[in-house]
Amino acid sequence: MSDGDGFRTVAIAGLGLIGGSLARDLAARGVRVLGYERDPSALDAAVREGVVSAALGDDRGGWDDADALVLAIPVRAATAVLRDALPRLGRLRLITDAGSTKAGIVAEARRLGIGARFVGAHPLAGDTRSGWAASRTGLFADGRVYLTPTDESSPEAVDLARALWTSVGGRVVEMGADEHDRLLAWTSHLPQVVSSALGAALAERGIARGELGPGGRDVTRLAASSPEMWRDILADNAGAVADAIAAVERQLSAIRATIERGDAEAIRAWLDGGSAWGERR
Amino acid sequence: MSDGDGFRTVAIAGLGLIGGSLARDLAARGVRVLGYERDPSALDAAVREGVVSAALGDDRGGWDDADALVLAIPVRAATAVLRDALPRLGRLRLITDAGSTKAGIVAEARRLGIGARFVGAHPLAGDTRSGWAASRTGLFADGRVYLTPTDESSPEAVDLARALWTSVGGRVVEMGADEHDRLLAWTSHLPQVVSSALGAALAERGIARGELGPGGRDVTRLAASSPEMWRDILADNAGAVADAIAAVERQLSAIRATIERGDAEAIRAWLDGGSAWGERR
Repeated sequence: MSDGDGFRTVAIAGLGLIGGSLARDLAARGVRVLGYERDPSALDAAVREGVVSAALGDDRGGWDDADALVLAIPVRAATAVLRDALPRLGRLRLITDAGSTKAGIVAEARRLGIGARFVGAHPLAGDTRSGWAASRTGLFADGRVYLTPTDESSPEAVDLARALWTSVGGRVVEMGADEHDRLLAWTSHLPQVVSSALGAALAERGIARGELGPGGRDVTRLAASSPEMWRDILADNAGAVADAIAAVERQLSAIRATIERGDAEAIRAWLDGGSAWGERR
Repeated sequence: MSDGDGFRTVAIAGLGLIGGSLARDLAARGVRVLGYERDPSALDAAVREGVVSAALGDDRGGWDDADALVLAIPVRAATAVLRDALPRLGRLRLITDAGSTKAGIVAEARRLGIGARFVGAHPLAGDTRSGWAASRTGLFADGRVYLTPTDESSPEAVDLARALWTSVGGRVVEMGADEHDRLLAWTSHLPQVVSSALGAALAERGIARGELGPGGRDVTRLAASSPEMWRDILADNAGAVADAIAAVERQLSAIRATIERGDAEAIRAWLDGGSAWGERR
């Protein structure tokens, strides 16, 4: 991200877990960070801590005084900002995001005529905590970062996106936006829904999370994730997520029937399958 | 567990995660531990490390040269040992276990005429790792331990069981065996099944655990748990577990329908409920 990588200033919209952590890592590497954040106290903290060099306002002024703009806000807001900020995006060489669904925002970028400079990104670095207070240096170290360039994306924009995430330690994997969303429905969105569903069932039964053992607390940890962020993800990737949920419903229904008929060896065989899967990398 | 607590020698059948950890904690407090373990290398290690003072054999000889016998083996095996070892249990003042289901073994102890000396126990200290190699000192510190005495249990046996688990740091909670099993169906057995079901769905889809992010790895951690132990638990507590599974199926089915009809605000409301639950203690 220094001179050799071709750009020196990055604008980041959203200084939460992802945007704040990216800002910290970039600032630590000498990159000048411009920051937009709707929570004034988080923005003040980021400026006071020397992570953000200049605060950006709602009027979008100065949003393109940078080589790259990273939209690190929930995907519906990111799509809205793309539309709204378009007149201000003239000088940016890369426009990217960090959302967990890619097909919608990639299509919107294309529709807005910024497909050449837009490269969708998704760092797989979620956490149940959110906001500037949860951000930290090193969040992306050795973590996967999906990039979803299209045939419209310029080689320069793709190179910049790759350099951006590699510079903070991410392991970049490129794939199409649709393929990404189908995969993440299983690897990320489904675990979130399953954890939330277990939490909802326990809540309905009147059981507090503190009554669970260490294993149960692991399974339900994601239930505390940001509802706003996950509302957007689940709505944006509805079809693929619904298919994945149905697969877990089928597993639960099958094992419930097996348990109800008292078939201990069939229970064992089902558990063996999950155990073998759980022990593999 | 020293003189003041009234007994000095404890026999433990099963030197896995629970039995091995209990043996380590008791030995460290000066209690003489007799150990039975079907895996000869684990038994050798326990003797070599000075945790187990004397090894017990399959012939049950010497199993009652102790004040208390703790059955730390899967619940079906524990019930079989109770039946099989009955002639050798004469001198024991406490017979107890460590299984995750209590109604079956408590009823069996009553049927065998040892109800006065039997007090069911369940330390809530599970882990996906198992065996002697996973055992460690301090496993029970500040963890909950359920005791399920009956009206037949003698006050002395209940006091000894309480002293045993309190001496290794457990926080003892007493309740009836049926009540325990209904509660644990939700707080422990259900999270295990949900984690395994997610693992099974991902395995069926051809997705390896290593492709998940940190959150997904949390949700699926329990999938690697011991199939033998969990087969017994799920078979033994079939009715209550089936009811609990059905509750999660209903949650998944409802949120899938909400996602399919694209109702973002209803998705949000559902996530808000789980999030509020997840953040409470």
